[in-house]
Amino acid sequence: MDERAAGAIGAAVQVLGDRWSLLVLRDVIFEDRRYFRALLTGSAEGIASNILADRLVKLVEAGMLARGTAARGQRARYSLTEAGIQTLPIICAFGDWGRRWRPGTARHGAAPGPGDRSDLIAAAMDQLRVRHLGAETPPPAGGEPLDQLKQLYYRTAGDG
Amino acid sequence: MDERAAGAIGAAVQVLGDRWSLLVLRDVIFEDRRYFRALLTGSAEGIASNILADRLVKLVEAGMLARGTAARGQRARYSLTEAGIQTLPIICAFGDWGRRWRPGTARHGAAPGPGDRSDLIAAAMDQLRVRHLGAETPPPAGGEPLDQLKQLYYRTAGDG
Repeated sequence: MDERAAGAIGAAVQVLGDRWSLLVLRDVIFEDRRYFRALLTGSAEGIASNILADRLVKLVEAGMLARGTAARGQRARYSLTEAGIQTLPIICAFGDWGRRWRPGTARHGAAPGPGDRSDLIAAAMDQLRVRHLGAETPPPAGGEPLDQLKQLYYRTAGDG
Repeated sequence: MDERAAGAIGAAVQVLGDRWSLLVLRDVIFEDRRYFRALLTGSAEGIASNILADRLVKLVEAGMLARGTAARGQRARYSLTEAGIQTLPIICAFGDWGRRWRPGTARHGAAPGPGDRSDLIAAAMDQLRVRHLGAETPPPAGGEPLDQLKQLYYRTAGDG
């Protein structure tokens, strides 16, 4: 594919337009799953071991995850890179759409527009920078942005 | 998959987390390609005929596209539904990420944050409602929002 011809959308979809890659990023971001086994056993969608292994390699190659060096007998820990952290608006855009249009995920029609959460998403990205990049940003006042977003996207129709 | 367990993000990724589906939606939205042949021959990524046919069926089944009834010998015209129009923030989130992180698609580091364009995206969705749903919203003042977004996401590194 000619990335220049395809433009920015095509270029991003080329590396991120894959169901399992998006779900792995979601679980790293919102569940803080940093190890292969946690990602495998915690997967709500039941990702297969070989698919998870393949997608972790691809996400590392694409520069969205960094794989920590593991000492002999230890498990490798994955961290988000800055490019990986900046996938959060994409993940949240999927969540906004899902809240509005998928039965069972939210009260239909009750979800706010996509522009309403940019401050919260920016704060959550700062939180991820502390957690994954060792940034020294102080923790935000007024609760954990990631938890607030998680509440939005994980609660089901009967909640809240 | 248990959609309730997976939450709003998983539910949306389930139906939209596919490279070709996202690219077809992009071409319907930004290129106004409404017919099978236009989507096939215009595809920057060179979508295969059988893949395009499959994804069009899936997008119709998922309620994101409506397939017009075609008279004998005429081609069927596709229109976005409201659910399809509301994928625009997802498409734009991919574009924002691509502008920032894919070489050749934009000046690195120069892309504004994802929250900066919510008004423009909302206006572009109104424009799509006129075009695809027959809404009677008057055309927006100050240029075409879809064209403005397209300029953002399609220009290459050397432009602008």
